[in-house]
Amino acid sequence: MDSEGFREAAVSSIDEIISYFDNISTRSVVSTVEPGYLRKLLPSTAPEDGEPWADIQRDMEAKILPGITHWQHPGFHAFFPCATSYPSILGELYSSALSGACFNWICSPAVTELETIVLDWLARMLGLPDCYLSTGPTRGGGVIQGSASEAVVTAMVAARDKYLRETTPTDLSEEAHDDFVAHKRSRMVALATTMTHSSTKKAAIILGVRFQAIPVRAEDNYALTMPVLAAALANCRARGLEPFFLTATLGTTDTCAVDDFAGITAALESHNPPTPQASFDMNMHKWLLTNFDASCLFVRNRNWFIQALSINQAIYSTGNSGSASPSDGGLVTDYREWQIPLGRRFRSLKIWFVMRTYGVKGLQAYIRRTTALGEDFAAWMRAREDLFEILTGPSFSLTVFRVKGATEEESNARTKRLCDGVNASGKIWVSNTVLDGKFAIRMMTGVRATEKEHVEAAFKLLVDMAGEIVKS
Amino acid sequence: MDSEGFREAAVSSIDEIISYFDNISTRSVVSTVEPGYLRKLLPSTAPEDGEPWADIQRDMEAKILPGITHWQHPGFHAFFPCATSYPSILGELYSSALSGACFNWICSPAVTELETIVLDWLARMLGLPDCYLSTGPTRGGGVIQGSASEAVVTAMVAARDKYLRETTPTDLSEEAHDDFVAHKRSRMVALATTMTHSSTKKAAIILGVRFQAIPVRAEDNYALTMPVLAAALANCRARGLEPFFLTATLGTTDTCAVDDFAGITAALESHNPPTPQASFDMNMHKWLLTNFDASCLFVRNRNWFIQALSINQAIYSTGNSGSASPSDGGLVTDYREWQIPLGRRFRSLKIWFVMRTYGVKGLQAYIRRTTALGEDFAAWMRAREDLFEILTGPSFSLTVFRVKGATEEESNARTKRLCDGVNASGKIWVSNTVLDGKFAIRMMTGVRATEKEHVEAAFKLLVDMAGEIVKS
Repeated sequence: MDSEGFREAAVSSIDEIISYFDNISTRSVVSTVEPGYLRKLLPSTAPEDGEPWADIQRDMEAKILPGITHWQHPGFHAFFPCATSYPSILGELYSSALSGACFNWICSPAVTELETIVLDWLARMLGLPDCYLSTGPTRGGGVIQGSASEAVVTAMVAARDKYLRETTPTDLSEEAHDDFVAHKRSRMVALATTMTHSSTKKAAIILGVRFQAIPVRAEDNYALTMPVLAAALANCRARGLEPFFLTATLGTTDTCAVDDFAGITAALESHNPPTPQASFDMNMHKWLLTNFDASCLFVRNRNWFIQALSINQAIYSTGNSGSASPSDGGLVTDYREWQIPLGRRFRSLKIWFVMRTYGVKGLQAYIRRTTALGEDFAAWMRAREDLFEILTGPSFSLTVFRVKGATEEESNARTKRLCDGVNASGKIWVSNTVLDGKFAIRMMTGVRATEKEHVEAAFKLLVDMAGEIVKS
Repeated sequence: MDSEGFREAAVSSIDEIISYFDNISTRSVVSTVEPGYLRKLLPSTAPEDGEPWADIQRDMEAKILPGITHWQHPGFHAFFPCATSYPSILGELYSSALSGACFNWICSPAVTELETIVLDWLARMLGLPDCYLSTGPTRGGGVIQGSASEAVVTAMVAARDKYLRETTPTDLSEEAHDDFVAHKRSRMVALATTMTHSSTKKAAIILGVRFQAIPVRAEDNYALTMPVLAAALANCRARGLEPFFLTATLGTTDTCAVDDFAGITAALESHNPPTPQASFDMNMHKWLLTNFDASCLFVRNRNWFIQALSINQAIYSTGNSGSASPSDGGLVTDYREWQIPLGRRFRSLKIWFVMRTYGVKGLQAYIRRTTALGEDFAAWMRAREDLFEILTGPSFSLTVFRVKGATEEESNARTKRLCDGVNASGKIWVSNTVLDGKFAIRMMTGVRATEKEHVEAAFKLLVDMAGEIVKS
C-alpha cells in the first residue's frame, strides 16, 4: 500500500466510520452471532499474496461488524461506558503513525513530556490534591497505564516492597533475612471489598499474596465504612495477618458506591501502618470520551515505584558516552520505572486532543448531562413502585433495580426474565448483578450518544415487558 | 467536533501523515530538544472552552514533532525496529472507532474470534509446532498482549502456580500447607541469561521471586548452551534453590543471539522438572509492520493460564439468566483469563489488515530484504578490518562492532566517540552495549524505509568519522 493507496483507503475508512456513528442506532446493540461464526467465514491460513484494500474493507462490514457489540450505541446501558470520540480517534491515528517503543525520554521526548503535562491537567480538572501533580511537593505525578488492572498490580508491587523495606530489620544475616521475609510475605494480605473491581484480587494472585474481600452492607449502600474496615483490620491482626494494601473506590463496579474515604483514613490511622502510598487511578477510557486504553494512575511519590521497578540494562542507557544523559540521569522522568512494560505507546496524544477539543466545560457538560439522564430514569422508576424496586442509585448515571414479587424467588425470576427479554430485543443492552441474593438489573446512561429519548424508550420497554411478566 | 468537522480534520491528518512519511528522511532521526522543552510551550491547565482542530493540528507540527525521535526514519539503526505501516494504521483507526472493553466473548464476539484466527495464521506463518494452534491437540492458542513484559509476567504466574500445584503435598494441614508454600516460594528462582531482555527480571520482581542471570560467553556467541545451563541448574540445586522458569531467546536484546534450544531441552530433561509450560512470545510490533502494541503470546495449554488467572465476578457473567451462555461457559475463549487486564482493545484488526495487505510473501520479502542489508553492512565492515572489529553478527539484521585500538581502553574510548559523533549528526541513530567490558555499537537495518543507499551512507559516515578519530 503506497501513499496514494493509503490516502484512498483512509478517506474511505473515515467515511465508513462517520456513517457507522451516524447510523449506529439502526444496529442491534449486542451482537447476535453464534460462537465460532467467524472461523466459518475466514480462511485458516494467511494469504500468500497481498490482497487489495477494497476486499478487506468489504469484509469489515460483511464479516466483522455483525460480530461487534456496539459500546457507543445509544441503547448501550450495560456495565459502564467505554467511550470514544472523534478527537480521541485522531489521537490514535497520529499515535499509530509515530509508532515507537518509547521506553525512555530520548526515544521521543514528547511522549514522556506530554504525558506528564496532560496528567497534570487532568489532576487539576479532577481537583486532586497537589501531591499528585508532577510539580507538587512530594515527587508525585501521573502515568498512563493500559488498564486499571495493570495500575493495581504496579501499585501493589510498590506497596509490598515499601512495606517489606519498612518492617524488615536491617541487622539480620542473609539466611535469617530470607526466612523473615518469606514468613512475612506469607502473612501479608491485600484488602478490598466484596464490591471492589476484580483487579485487586487478580493483582494479589499475580504477586502471590493473600487476598481478603471485606463484606459491605446494604444499609451502608454497599460502601466501605470506618467500623467495617476497623473490624476487618482487627480480625486480620487477630489471625496473625498483616494488611498492607487496600483498594478504596469512588464508584464501585456493581453499584457505583462511594467508599467512605474519611472513615477509611480514620480507621487506617488508628491501625497505625507505615505512611500509606495512596495511589489514585481513574480510567479516562470509561467516561471521559477517550478510547480504550487510557488508565490514568497518579502516584504520591514516584520513588516508591522506582525503588520497586527499576531495571538497569546497558542497552537502554542512552547516554552513549556513559556520561550524564537526560534519560537515566534523574533529570527526566523514566516512565518505564512506573509500570510493568518497558516500551510505551504515545497515549497522551488522544487525551490532549480530547481535553483541548471539548475543554473542561465541554467534559463537565457531558458528565452532567448523562448523570441527569440517570436521575430521570431513577425518578421514572420510583413513579412505578407497583412494578420496580430500586436497590441502589442513581449514582454516577447508574441505577440498580429489580422487578417486585411476592417472594424473593418470584422477584428474582421476574427480574431475570426481564433482563433476558429486553436484551433479546436488540434495542438496549443492560447488565446484571446479584446483591445479597437479589438478582438485579444495572441501567447505565453514560454513553455519549444516549439522549433523553433513548432513556425514555428504554424505560418504556422495561415497563411494558415487566408488566407482561407480572401479568403472566 | 461533529461528523463534518471530523471528516475535515481526519482527511487533513491523513495528508499530514502521508507527508510525514514521504519526507521523513529530511528530519533529524533523534530529537534534539532539551529536557522540559514542552512545558514551556503548553499551558499548565486544560482550556476551559474547546479549541478548534486547526489550532491543535498546528501544534502537532510546531510543538510535538520536534520532540519526536523518528523510529520509522531510514537512518534509525538503534535498538530494534518498532514498525508501523499503512494497513496497521488503518487497523488502529477502526479499532479506536469500535472502542469497547471487550472482556468476554459477547462484549464483541469478533474481537475474541478474530484474535484466535489471526494468531493461528501467525503460528502457521512462523512454522510453530501444532501445540500452539487453537485447533491443536493440547488446548493451546495465541493471545495478544500489550508488551512482552506483560506476556512474561503472565507466563511466569502460570508457571509458578503450576510448579506449586505439582510439588506441594496435598495431605498437609492448612498451617503446614502455608508454611510449606511460603518456604518453597522463597527458594524458587526464575532464570534468564545476562543477554536476556530485562522483562524476565522485572517479572520476578513483580512476583517477588528470586531471579538469576546465567552468564553467557563470547565463545558461544552469547547464546545459552547445554553445558552452561546444566551447570547453572546444578548450582541452583546445590544452594537449595528450585528453578521453575527459564526465558530462552531467539534473538537476544543486545546481540540477537539465538539460544541453543535443543541443548536447553536436553539440559532441562536431565534436570527432570514437571512438564514444561513452554510459552512462546513474539512482538509483531517489532519487525512485522504492525504498530506498537502487538505482543503475540502462544501457550501450549490454556488451562495452565486459566487455573492461575481466572476471576469470577457476577457482573461479568453475561449469561443473564444464570444458565449456559457462550461466555463464561467454556464454549468460547475468555481471553481475560490469559492476561493481566480485564478489558481488551481490538488489536487483532491491525494484524489482520497487515497480513492480508502484504501477504505471507510480502512479509517474507521485507524480512529478507532488511536481513540482506545487515549482511551487506557486515561485509563492508569486514573489508575495513583496519578500522573495525565485528563482535557479533550479522544476526537478524544486527551487527555489533567496535573501533579497533592498541588497547581495550583506546578501543572503548574511540567507539564511544564514534557513537556520540554519528548520533550527533542527526543523520543516523545507533545504540550501544557493553560486551565483556567492550563498549560496542549496535547497527540494525530492519526499518521498512531503510534502503541500500541509506546503509551505504551510514557506513560511509561511520568510516569517515572513525578514520578521523583514529587519526586524531
